[in-house]
This record gives sequence, structure tokens and C-alpha cells, in this order.
Amino acid sequence: MGEFDLIKRFFERERSTQVGVALGIGDDCAVLQPAAGQQWLVSTDMLVEGRHFLSTVAPELLGHKALAVNLSDLAACGATPRAFTLALALPRADEAFLAGFARGLFALADAHGIALVGGDTTAGPLNICVTVMGECPQGQALLRSGARPGDDIYISGCLGDARLALEQFRGTLSLPGEDFAQVRLAMERPEPRVALGQALRGIASSAIDVSDGLAGDLGHVLVRSGVGAELDFERLPRSRWLAAQPAAVQQLCLLSGGDDYELVFTAPAAQREAVLAAAQASGTAVSRVGHISAEAGLRVLDGSGEKMALQLQSFDHFKA
Amino acid sequence: MGEFDLIKRFFERERSTQVGVALGIGDDCAVLQPAAGQQWLVSTDMLVEGRHFLSTVAPELLGHKALAVNLSDLAACGATPRAFTLALALPRADEAFLAGFARGLFALADAHGIALVGGDTTAGPLNICVTVMGECPQGQALLRSGARPGDDIYISGCLGDARLALEQFRGTLSLPGEDFAQVRLAMERPEPRVALGQALRGIASSAIDVSDGLAGDLGHVLVRSGVGAELDFERLPRSRWLAAQPAAVQQLCLLSGGDDYELVFTAPAAQREAVLAAAQASGTAVSRVGHISAEAGLRVLDGSGEKMALQLQSFDHFKA
Repeated sequence: MGEFDLIKRFFERERSTQVGVALGIGDDCAVLQPAAGQQWLVSTDMLVEGRHFLSTVAPELLGHKALAVNLSDLAACGATPRAFTLALALPRADEAFLAGFARGLFALADAHGIALVGGDTTAGPLNICVTVMGECPQGQALLRSGARPGDDIYISGCLGDARLALEQFRGTLSLPGEDFAQVRLAMERPEPRVALGQALRGIASSAIDVSDGLAGDLGHVLVRSGVGAELDFERLPRSRWLAAQPAAVQQLCLLSGGDDYELVFTAPAAQREAVLAAAQASGTAVSRVGHISAEAGLRVLDGSGEKMALQLQSFDHFKA
Repeated sequence: MGEFDLIKRFFERERSTQVGVALGIGDDCAVLQPAAGQQWLVSTDMLVEGRHFLSTVAPELLGHKALAVNLSDLAACGATPRAFTLALALPRADEAFLAGFARGLFALADAHGIALVGGDTTAGPLNICVTVMGECPQGQALLRSGARPGDDIYISGCLGDARLALEQFRGTLSLPGEDFAQVRLAMERPEPRVALGQALRGIASSAIDVSDGLAGDLGHVLVRSGVGAELDFERLPRSRWLAAQPAAVQQLCLLSGGDDYELVFTAPAAQREAVLAAAQASGTAVSRVGHISAEAGLRVLDGSGEKMALQLQSFDHFKA
């Protein structure tokens, strides 16, 4: 199977009319058709074996995740997904791998109405690079820079399960088989919060997706917005599997977990009802977990309102 | 040096007002601002060591080439470059490499007025994935599908020098030192024909950039357009270094060379003066090398108009 056969067989699909796409795969460039009054949002993520996924992952789940982590960036900005490109380095043209990968990729793409419009395939150590594009009405994108003192802080879904699964793979803890199956799903099949992001346009003051751990990612919002924050540790949303772990494991997974792909966002207190309505409309659980303050830095408070002593570390690809 | 320091130090630059870019690096997504009546064109290319570049290449040239091969796709569509993302997997955060890479990358970016608006960095086997975005007035993008019987076929610059350099690296031929320096530049520092592509809007009927060899890439145009072509072998533009090589080497390098990043395009005979004016306005040499015919397939003719017997092969990453 050659390069062009591979693209044709696994990645070219029947042309369909797709909002925002004038021309898809098959030319030097794809042609996008912006609608009047819309801005286009772009994000890119690269996945490397052993860093972003384990060699044991099912190809279908890998296809899902490669797109999911990118859709999560569109979600964090409140954008409507439109188009994506896929660049793929493969050690060899393995048909079973490619069939599974494409199945997982397109199932998620179809669920969000986003079209594969171009790409590149090459031989090389396994590497997956997806670039997503989405639309958002002029000036309505949710950004990291909009948090203001007094705003509430919210988190979608629950945090830490993906890290719990990773720690099990690493052998630092031992979960019962059925619990492990659940947290492994959180790690290998994250659901990007696209509908919630769109529902929060005009309501949230800032947003980011949690990919490197809550403390680090919320930290980006605080720096960009020039503010600080207090988080109530007990309010941080966690699964019953994580809630059953020792305090130190809970702290690690909730605050420095990584790979969560939940949204952390802020909104003025006057928007509490609107936030709940957005959560309901998008079918996504949302928890209010703290507030923004004028004093720089992040403070995590225990059940009695005391500042917890924590060593917070965000995931960094070039640090141990 | 951590991941975020690395981005800040080498890839974040002072914000400047850039046409089409509302928000650059630093959020979950970049925000692009389409102008009225414009379409956005997107392309992505992934570069892997040993496949697309040799380990001996200077980092500055690699930074140049990673963007150049992508700009070449925008050029082939006649688009004006606006924004690009960069995803980078690095074995380690090597400062000398990164400084050189960024220097080469931004020198070319600045020359074409294109802004780095987002990206991703991770540890892993060296891999560079660039996605470019450009603008083109509605319906004016040059596509592979527009060639019509009777159209002339043109090529920019000259073909085959990059392949000549590769063959020298492989040890299959031996060029004098100064000649090698010249052809090595063609391989390591290709100049994307962006100005020519834009000048050909409304003049050329189809275009593609030559990255996998003329025969293969022109073949894509023929298939998409439902036509065939005759090429005059003697008219194929070649450097004096290539012209000094045996006939078999010239055939290989001109027809199946790869890595040329020249444009091959078609235009109705009535546009000959307009093509020359576009070439002149963009400061790019252009050669008329054949014509499109109704009969499918590509025929290469020798000096006396006889069909040459050739075994043409396009570069394929998954074939020997």
C-alpha cells in the first residue's frame, strides 16, 4: 500500500456539503469559506507515543483522542468546530492500525460536524499532529485574559481520573478491575466539552481546558488576566474512585493531574443562573469551585478555609 | 529550560498588527479575522529527520525549509500567506538548535508577512509539523482541477537540483565542490514561489507545486482535470550543473526529482503575454514546457518530437 492509496483508502470520504468548507482533501490547500461576522479559531496539538499515549492503546481510541484534545481547545474558546487537518508519521502502513484509527477519528469528527480537509502522511516514528479550525461570532471567543476579581470559578465534569489511570499503569497504586476500566476510559477516551464552550459564549469571562493539570492551567488564566484565585479543595469535582483514594493521591490527581480535557472557566456572580442553564442545555455537569481575587497567585483552601500547603507542579515535557 | 520557557524564549515575539490575525500565540486558540470577500486556504506538512532532511542540515536552514514547503502549497493556490502554527517534537531542548531553527523560520516568515499564531512543543523523536493559512479572493484560488486541452504548461525556476544534491549525498555521483554548494542550497533552502502564485490569479487555469517529482505532481493535475499532457523534454528548465550530467541523471532529476518546490501550472494560449508579465512582476523565471491534451496520460517527447520510453516514479513514503 503506497502513500496515496493509504490516504484514499482510509482518509478520503465522499464529499458532502459542510458548513465553512468550500474544498476539502485533494488539492495543495483546502479552501475555507468564512461566514459574515465570524472569526476563525485555530489550534494544533502533536501526540507522541510514550508521551501522550501508551503503545497499548487501541487504535480506535487513539484516533478519538488525537482529535478530542484539539476539539477541547476549540471548546475552551467557545468555537463551533468546522475543519481539521491531520499529519501522520507512521513506522509502517499497518492496515489494522489505520482502519481503527480512522474509525475512532471520524466517529468523533462526525459527532461534532467537523470535516477532515487536508493532511500529510510520511514514514517515521509514530507521531500524530492535528490542527483544528472553528468559527465564533466576532469578538465572542472565550479567552484566558478575561477573568476579573469577584468572578466565580467553575469546572466541568470531574478531574483526576486520567491521572489515576496513569498511576495505575505506572504501578504506584492498585485499583479494582472495574474501577480501573472506568478511569482508563477517562484517560483514553476524553470527551471534549464543545457544547458547553459554545453555550458559555457571552456568559463566561474566561476559559481554558485542563490538559496539564488544574493548578498549571488555571495559573495561565491568572497570569493572562492579571488576577489571583482561591480554590475550595473540597469542592473540586472528583469521581467516587478518586474520592476513595488517600488525600495525597487526591491532591496530586485533582491539582496536577493532566489529560483531563475539562473546562475551567470564570463568570461574574450575576451569571450564576446563566451558567447553570448553559450546563443544563449542553448536558454537562458543572461545579463552582472558588473565586477570582485581586491578589496574584493561586491559594487552595481546605474545608475550614485554611490555606493548604501544597507543592503544585504542572506537566512539562522538558522537565522531569 | 522548560516547555513554556522554551516557547517564550524562541517562539513568542512582540505583538504586532498583522493582517488577518486578531489574536496570536498565548491562548487555547489563535483568532483569525477574515476580510470580506476572501476565502481562507489551509495546508499542512510534516518533516521527519532522514526522510525530509538529513541530520547534517544547519538548524537555520531547517527552520527555513519547514515553513518554505508549506508556503509553497499556498503559492500553488495563489494565496496570500497570513498565519501558521508550528508543532515540534524534540529529543531535547537544545538551545543552539532552537535559536538557529527560530532564526531561519522567522526570517522567511517575515519575508512573506506571515505570523506564527500558535503551536505545540513536546519531547519525542525530531518531528516538525507546520500548518499554514492564507487568504485569496472568493473563487480565485488556483486548483489542480482547472487544466483544459490546449492549455500551455509552464514551470517556474529550474528542476532537479535538489535531487542532484541528494544523489551526491548518497554517493551515486560526484560534483565539483562549488557546484555541490549550489545544488545543496536548492535542496536545503528552497524559495517558495509565493509572489508568482499570487500574480497568476485570474491567468493560470491550474497549478500545483512540485514536491514529489514533476511526473507525479503534474499527474495529479491531469487526473483531477480529466486531461492528458505532452511535455517537451528539452524545454524542461535545468541548471548548468544538471545540464552537464548524463542523460539518465537528467531524466531522473527533472521528471522524478522531488523537493523542487517550483510551480507547474497551466494557462490558455491566449494568456501567454499575461503569464510573462506575471513572471516578470514577481521576479520569477518561467518556462513553457508543453501542453495539455484531451488524451489521458503523460507523454514526454524528445527533441525530434518522438515519445520517450521512460519509467517514471513519483516519490512515495511507503514504497521503496
